[in-house]
Amino acid sequence: MLGARGGWQAFRRCASLPRAQRAVRLRVREALEAREPASEVKVQGWVRSVRSQKEVLFLHINDGSSLENLQVVADPSLENRDLTFGSAVEVQGKLVKSPHRMQNMELKAETIRVVGPCDTWSFPLKMKERHPLEYVRQFPHLRCRNNTLGSLLRIRSEATAAIHSFFQDNGYVHIHTPIITSNDCEGAGELFQIETPNEARESAEKTHFFNVPAFLTVSGQLHLEVMAGAFTHVFTFGPTFRAENSQSRRHLAEFYMVEAELSFTESLQDIMQVMEDLFKTVTSTVLSKCPRDVELFHKYIAPTQKDRLEQVLKNKFVTISYNEAVEILKQASQTFAFKPEWGSDLQTEHEKYLVKHCGEVPVFVINYPYDLKPFYMRDNEDGPQHTVAAVDLLVPGIGELCGGSLREERLPFLESRLQRLGLADAYQWYLDLRKFGSVPHGGFGMGFERYLQYILGVDNIKDVIPFPRFSHSCLL
Amino acid sequence: MLGARGGWQAFRRCASLPRAQRAVRLRVREALEAREPASEVKVQGWVRSVRSQKEVLFLHINDGSSLENLQVVADPSLENRDLTFGSAVEVQGKLVKSPHRMQNMELKAETIRVVGPCDTWSFPLKMKERHPLEYVRQFPHLRCRNNTLGSLLRIRSEATAAIHSFFQDNGYVHIHTPIITSNDCEGAGELFQIETPNEARESAEKTHFFNVPAFLTVSGQLHLEVMAGAFTHVFTFGPTFRAENSQSRRHLAEFYMVEAELSFTESLQDIMQVMEDLFKTVTSTVLSKCPRDVELFHKYIAPTQKDRLEQVLKNKFVTISYNEAVEILKQASQTFAFKPEWGSDLQTEHEKYLVKHCGEVPVFVINYPYDLKPFYMRDNEDGPQHTVAAVDLLVPGIGELCGGSLREERLPFLESRLQRLGLADAYQWYLDLRKFGSVPHGGFGMGFERYLQYILGVDNIKDVIPFPRFSHSCLL
Repeated sequence: MLGARGGWQAFRRCASLPRAQRAVRLRVREALEAREPASEVKVQGWVRSVRSQKEVLFLHINDGSSLENLQVVADPSLENRDLTFGSAVEVQGKLVKSPHRMQNMELKAETIRVVGPCDTWSFPLKMKERHPLEYVRQFPHLRCRNNTLGSLLRIRSEATAAIHSFFQDNGYVHIHTPIITSNDCEGAGELFQIETPNEARESAEKTHFFNVPAFLTVSGQLHLEVMAGAFTHVFTFGPTFRAENSQSRRHLAEFYMVEAELSFTESLQDIMQVMEDLFKTVTSTVLSKCPRDVELFHKYIAPTQKDRLEQVLKNKFVTISYNEAVEILKQASQTFAFKPEWGSDLQTEHEKYLVKHCGEVPVFVINYPYDLKPFYMRDNEDGPQHTVAAVDLLVPGIGELCGGSLREERLPFLESRLQRLGLADAYQWYLDLRKFGSVPHGGFGMGFERYLQYILGVDNIKDVIPFPRFSHSCLL
Repeated sequence: MLGARGGWQAFRRCASLPRAQRAVRLRVREALEAREPASEVKVQGWVRSVRSQKEVLFLHINDGSSLENLQVVADPSLENRDLTFGSAVEVQGKLVKSPHRMQNMELKAETIRVVGPCDTWSFPLKMKERHPLEYVRQFPHLRCRNNTLGSLLRIRSEATAAIHSFFQDNGYVHIHTPIITSNDCEGAGELFQIETPNEARESAEKTHFFNVPAFLTVSGQLHLEVMAGAFTHVFTFGPTFRAENSQSRRHLAEFYMVEAELSFTESLQDIMQVMEDLFKTVTSTVLSKCPRDVELFHKYIAPTQKDRLEQVLKNKFVTISYNEAVEILKQASQTFAFKPEWGSDLQTEHEKYLVKHCGEVPVFVINYPYDLKPFYMRDNEDGPQHTVAAVDLLVPGIGELCGGSLREERLPFLESRLQRLGLADAYQWYLDLRKFGSVPHGGFGMGFERYLQYILGVDNIKDVIPFPRFSHSCLL
């Protein structure tokens, strides 16, 4: 196997092999980044354009290793009927310096083999057309061959790796929290239930596969809290589920969430610092590792996003309290559909206003009303406006990107709250954690798709996932 | 936040701060690995042992950053009633060279604060007891505080990171393949169905949330194949599901699978090379990053595993064909419950024999009978014993660790096979992929829990997951 880093080394090693074996397979990215010309090179990929002139045949080849295509220059005699847009080819020849300013290297073809022809007539993507995202979303099995989706998937892959690295570099232990669970984590949203097909068909008297009703996880937080009783820093990064409205451009039934939990943490500011560091580190990594892919979005999808993001990375995130937020909203000249009032949830219109008020930058809102938030959040013991140590991170265009809190580590507080809610029996194991070396701790979650939407300026969340699986006709 | 790498740097930066702020938080691992003594150090963690002598009080503190505890030496006057096994403490003092040969550093306590006491009476773990894995499995919310599970979770975290790095370093694009899907990938096993709770309660005439029946994925392969039409190297690493027998020590309802797909790959050997490289790279990384954690398993759980694993890492994996395997089995002196015969599946007893026959090392078995394997595997067009280009990797004590194949990229072959199976309509999108620049490709999957079972020599698969969620009473 020739890896991205292995290609050139292999190339050098192979320099003395007999001719038939000598051609070295290079990826498009490797070929484009090559420092020196080379003969006996083999590039494989899919044809993105064919331009036939009297004296010369030009091809553009892409293999997914970069947004840029490799230009292939060939004698017109190498043209053949199957050499069309979308076909898969293997080209052998010489890698030479390109005369074009925009490109470092190009491939002078000696042989071109069409490995897999393309039925261009029925292929929904067309040569050199900039298809709208809504159009390609109709073809979940083919849209990855579109430039924008190709870039998105490379960015998504780099962002995923950057998130893992961030936590690893900071000594966090990665925990795979369960997908199938019997807890609903605070009733965070509508649940999907799991059944075996037989059960689903039977009556209400059925026996469950797991003996108890089982659901798809809405959050790994409570499981991470278990681990925070043995490890001071833990994180998880996996799929979570909500049986929510399918038509929103902000919600998915299945989405990825990064969650972290920190023990021996007494201050909400420590949690917020990790949220900010995570955002900035991952974003900087993505910008430096996929500059051309990000540029595509910042050029064609969200032209103002580039400068804004650079500003965000330079400055400290703004922090306001919920109390301050309500005052700001009350003093707003704008009239809201929902009247801002202490004790009510912030609506999307309120979040938008707050973000705008603060200069279209990410804003931490902290210390929310006690009665608005789930049982596990830490009581601030203030009053008469009773709050908990909760934080939401709001970002322009998206709303809530992250949510976190200190957790209630004190057994008497937690016990009485769960008893009032009638949940003390269901959460006996959670109460147990407070009996055996309980420590102040806190954590947060960040929606991965919303993160991608924000940094790339993508309007519809379906366009930042590999398969638009929430669109009914497209469920593969 | 002080990360594993950030601690000492922060410590140096803080050297001139006023006394009250000067104590630097160090993790246990950082303290143990420190090169030089230091004053004003703060360590937080859970007490693993308390030994009170007339002149001195000894504590062992663990915070999950390593298997080893940090020894704290204190004046007996610092003892208090709450300072017990399992309690959470914050110790401030001087980090000094330890007089003990086995330990680099120890902490001379100036203050000890019990942050969270432990009700030792009802705490199921006991000081200095080596609890059997079956025992701690009963306490899914507390067992991470046990040494063995702590080590397992650190190893699992490092192995996960090593898998991501392996693919990243080799230029693979990471794809999050869907968890909720309407395809059952070849009928690989029993499926879990997804419903919203309302649907589950209603009759057979219900409308589905996604309009079509939806299931938990059994494999991301077919989705990866979609991506292999635009990227030459893709991988996924996520949860997969089978509604299988709960009582096996080899099966889980929810388990992790690494899957990779390579385009422009005409030889099964290329796929096998990646499987072998992945195994060896990840295992070497785990052995070098968690030596003490792995040692715990190789000392107390599987004493012969260490030497064997070292041999395996040094030698090339053995390859035999299915035909050869059947001949070996037929000539065996052993009598099998299932008579070995060409055309029949290899049973566990057969796999065990083959692995033993080859010297208790990993064995690739290639080219299985056409009729035994799913539709997507590439026809070898041989005969009269008709085979497909499939491979299984068998390992001692486990059986099948990986499975892979070349995929049938030729439209006519695939179309006629799907038609015979009555699946051509259901897999229209999969056939489509063969019409638009189809290329020879192949891939494989590796069960992550089986991998951990094998390298650590763990008998029961429930002991290599964070939460033993397949045990009914323990579903959190």
